[in-house]
Amino acid sequence: MSAFQHLDSLAAHSDVYKDSQHVAVIDMGSNSFRLIVIEYVPNLSFRVVDEVRETVRLSEGMADTNIMRAAAMDRAARAVQIYAAFCKASGISDIMAVGTSAIRDAKNQQRFLARLQAETGIAVRVLSGYEEAYYGYLAAVNCTTLQDGYVLDMGGGSIQISRVQDRQIGDSISFPYGAVRMTERFLKSDPATYRETDALSSFLRKEFSALKWYKAKQGMQIVGEGGGLRQVGRLVQKMIGYPLDTMHGYQITLAQMKTVRDELARRSVADRKKMPGMKPDRADIALGATVVLCEALEAGGFDRITISSQGVREGLFYERFLKYEQDDAVPLFEDVRQSSVYNLGHLYRYQEKHAKHIASLTLSMFDQLPRAVHQCRPADRDLLWAASMLHDIGVAIDYHDHHKHSAYLILNGSLPGFTHREIALIALLVRYHRKGAPTLDEFAPMMEAGDDRRLIQLCALLRLAEQIDRSRDGVAQTVTLNMGGDWAQLELGVRGDGQVALWSVDRHRDVFQQAFGLELEVTMAPSNA
Amino acid sequence: MSAFQHLDSLAAHSDVYKDSQHVAVIDMGSNSFRLIVIEYVPNLSFRVVDEVRETVRLSEGMADTNIMRAAAMDRAARAVQIYAAFCKASGISDIMAVGTSAIRDAKNQQRFLARLQAETGIAVRVLSGYEEAYYGYLAAVNCTTLQDGYVLDMGGGSIQISRVQDRQIGDSISFPYGAVRMTERFLKSDPATYRETDALSSFLRKEFSALKWYKAKQGMQIVGEGGGLRQVGRLVQKMIGYPLDTMHGYQITLAQMKTVRDELARRSVADRKKMPGMKPDRADIALGATVVLCEALEAGGFDRITISSQGVREGLFYERFLKYEQDDAVPLFEDVRQSSVYNLGHLYRYQEKHAKHIASLTLSMFDQLPRAVHQCRPADRDLLWAASMLHDIGVAIDYHDHHKHSAYLILNGSLPGFTHREIALIALLVRYHRKGAPTLDEFAPMMEAGDDRRLIQLCALLRLAEQIDRSRDGVAQTVTLNMGGDWAQLELGVRGDGQVALWSVDRHRDVFQQAFGLELEVTMAPSNA
Repeated sequence: MSAFQHLDSLAAHSDVYKDSQHVAVIDMGSNSFRLIVIEYVPNLSFRVVDEVRETVRLSEGMADTNIMRAAAMDRAARAVQIYAAFCKASGISDIMAVGTSAIRDAKNQQRFLARLQAETGIAVRVLSGYEEAYYGYLAAVNCTTLQDGYVLDMGGGSIQISRVQDRQIGDSISFPYGAVRMTERFLKSDPATYRETDALSSFLRKEFSALKWYKAKQGMQIVGEGGGLRQVGRLVQKMIGYPLDTMHGYQITLAQMKTVRDELARRSVADRKKMPGMKPDRADIALGATVVLCEALEAGGFDRITISSQGVREGLFYERFLKYEQDDAVPLFEDVRQSSVYNLGHLYRYQEKHAKHIASLTLSMFDQLPRAVHQCRPADRDLLWAASMLHDIGVAIDYHDHHKHSAYLILNGSLPGFTHREIALIALLVRYHRKGAPTLDEFAPMMEAGDDRRLIQLCALLRLAEQIDRSRDGVAQTVTLNMGGDWAQLELGVRGDGQVALWSVDRHRDVFQQAFGLELEVTMAPSNA
Repeated sequence: MSAFQHLDSLAAHSDVYKDSQHVAVIDMGSNSFRLIVIEYVPNLSFRVVDEVRETVRLSEGMADTNIMRAAAMDRAARAVQIYAAFCKASGISDIMAVGTSAIRDAKNQQRFLARLQAETGIAVRVLSGYEEAYYGYLAAVNCTTLQDGYVLDMGGGSIQISRVQDRQIGDSISFPYGAVRMTERFLKSDPATYRETDALSSFLRKEFSALKWYKAKQGMQIVGEGGGLRQVGRLVQKMIGYPLDTMHGYQITLAQMKTVRDELARRSVADRKKMPGMKPDRADIALGATVVLCEALEAGGFDRITISSQGVREGLFYERFLKYEQDDAVPLFEDVRQSSVYNLGHLYRYQEKHAKHIASLTLSMFDQLPRAVHQCRPADRDLLWAASMLHDIGVAIDYHDHHKHSAYLILNGSLPGFTHREIALIALLVRYHRKGAPTLDEFAPMMEAGDDRRLIQLCALLRLAEQIDRSRDGVAQTVTLNMGGDWAQLELGVRGDGQVALWSVDRHRDVFQQAFGLELEVTMAPSNA
């Protein structure tokens, strides 16, 4: 294998996207309409390549009558017309358009759909409350490690709550208590009066607490979706000066949510727009949204919620992307973390063979290190694996400083299934895989006790492995660690000329010594693998 | 044209690197040996894809005798052997190896070269002093906008000074006064004594001032190369908390250089290693290097120098890369800035047609805007062009937040020929081409008066153009600006269905209004282009 497989993979023949497909998903919500375009290779890799969002407020004025207003329908028809023109100009013929709560509940649904079809050529699939919950669930289990717990998806028109057991959907319900509807029905003053907010809370409390199957138990997680929750997340992140600019996987506590709710309640809509992190076109419904979320969490007995940036749109996409042999199986990634890492690697056309070789070397050393000499935990093995697989993806940006670029891509890309702390650790491992003294840097506030030490030790293994395969030809096939009281001996099992490996490792022995307090001796023997 | 040309260009058929070549350049200097591997498509695009550096100190102990020592030759042979093995493992057969001052001047050169050839199979081309100056010059004029002035290239063994007139090389000289040699010969104590430093300065002053053709005149620039100067640059950047992490194009003043020199002179080698930005294996020669540089600048009458991160290695490469029809012409880019922009665009496989269309729209608006309504200068047109060409390169990372990724790539990639201020402005234009209120952010200290206003105005043009071609199909072929007292009318000349353009622009009119204080009206007419 050549050192330039990573270049080959940047070039023509091994490009994963050469047989890619495109699908447009149009989501016609009660508050906003959104078009996303996804480029994908079935079962392998996907990425969002375009997005258009428009605040349509389709459910405006529907709270009492369940009739879509003429002005709202005109705005909606105009937006869909633009989306259709956009798809046409872009050469996209595969379009999935779905309508949720507002359209579902409207008495004048049929006429509206017929109008859309006539004016835009787009046929809209109206999701039932169950279907809306199901696709929200499908996104959540495919982009988090949720095993047992709940998915909560709140939009402008409705809120869905679903029970998840062993990654399968159980009970689920859809309430027409979305942020736009609740705001229109209860919060008529600006700023809202205490009496109005209280009436909304009381109403929701009664409704949500009637759900007998919705109760937090030990070890359960709740994953939340929807623009209203992401808005709360943005406000919290600004409030605490959070070091990451990522929403997916972010966890907020009920206490933080209540602080946001009380702050919103004090302010007029105009004043809310001045809050750092507030999207102006969400300011009017932000209080209603936050009250609904607070009540939903309290009713279930949850003191925190994990935000998913994916939702119904992605759920619909996964059904298309994950083609299973049995048609009736729920389309789930077998292992979300693993899929994330492979997806990110493929997106940046990583040198898969070298990455896997580095992973085999680091994990072999990790497994051979006696428990007494390190502070790592079994769970850290996953992080070491992910960092090994992704350490070179920054080469897609530039060889020079590629360790920094890899870290940037990991922090700014997405690694669904890992927590923010884990993502930051993976990024730091990669950041220091060539040089520099590993430190937690600006991520220290997100870390657990001992993570600084663990980072140094895991990083030492990654750096050694990178030097062992410095010529990227897999010449050193195995590593054997022999340990003494204050020394370690690393034997490389090589096939072919191992001098680059030996020379390279030799220059980085001090990293191992500093990490584990052991003198390192490196030797070479013919591989018997 | 489809909206997915940028994806097509990510994919197989249009990949610029599918016919790429690789060349390894091995530079055997007096202080360090370096191997770089460059991937390139002749005349189109290139990037460094690997680099190995080793501090060999080949000239160690040569100051008095001009004989390479056995230990130094052993270190050198070992390094070259490793480089040869590395190239072999990597499948690279095109290797250019050059030796400079230490090898050139050594009395035992022949035996050493024969040994290298025998042990490693690598034939070394020994550069004469003139050739070393020439390749340094070639790099400088191909990676800066140097027209008239000088190139100064200091290594461990020698320093070259070349006169540049209208981009051609004029007088040039090579002195054996490199950092390693001068340190060995003059600075024997640790810390160096005042008497030692003074003796070195006096010696150099006399030598350099003998150069009659080396005198700064109005409008002349001096470009500097070599590891010793980059080291001074790093120390200065740390000292002043510079916001960029880039060395190429960085300008340091003689005053800053003297501050660094005096600080180094006060410290022992061990203490120098504690200075932020100091490379440990440069600490011992850093003072010698800085004294040489200070004296060289003073002798020429320059009060500042612009750092080039490219040097002899790149000069050798340009000779290979830029194949001219006439064999005797000096291989120069016609326009360094333009080449840089195209190179960066190609590296990230930009959607060239869309980029050029955006550039034609922004420049057309720029040219039509009466001088009275904006604060931009003619030179800003180049920045607007560069930002238009590169605004979408971040899509190679991720569509989501691609404006931020584009800015990251511009700040961390390289755009030779632009100053740091200009690079930061291009990055900021790109950063705000989709949303957000443009501000100078952390780059304010690098900017000139009025740049905040100019940024807002240039950005408004870029953002409008991006909306005009929102469907990326070039439907709006021309823009015509008609101006009134407090309003402007923008007429799009469209061929086909312009509704996406009109709808998109309409949502961003306020940006134009805020930038120019003019109400904007947008209309559409059939294109007569």
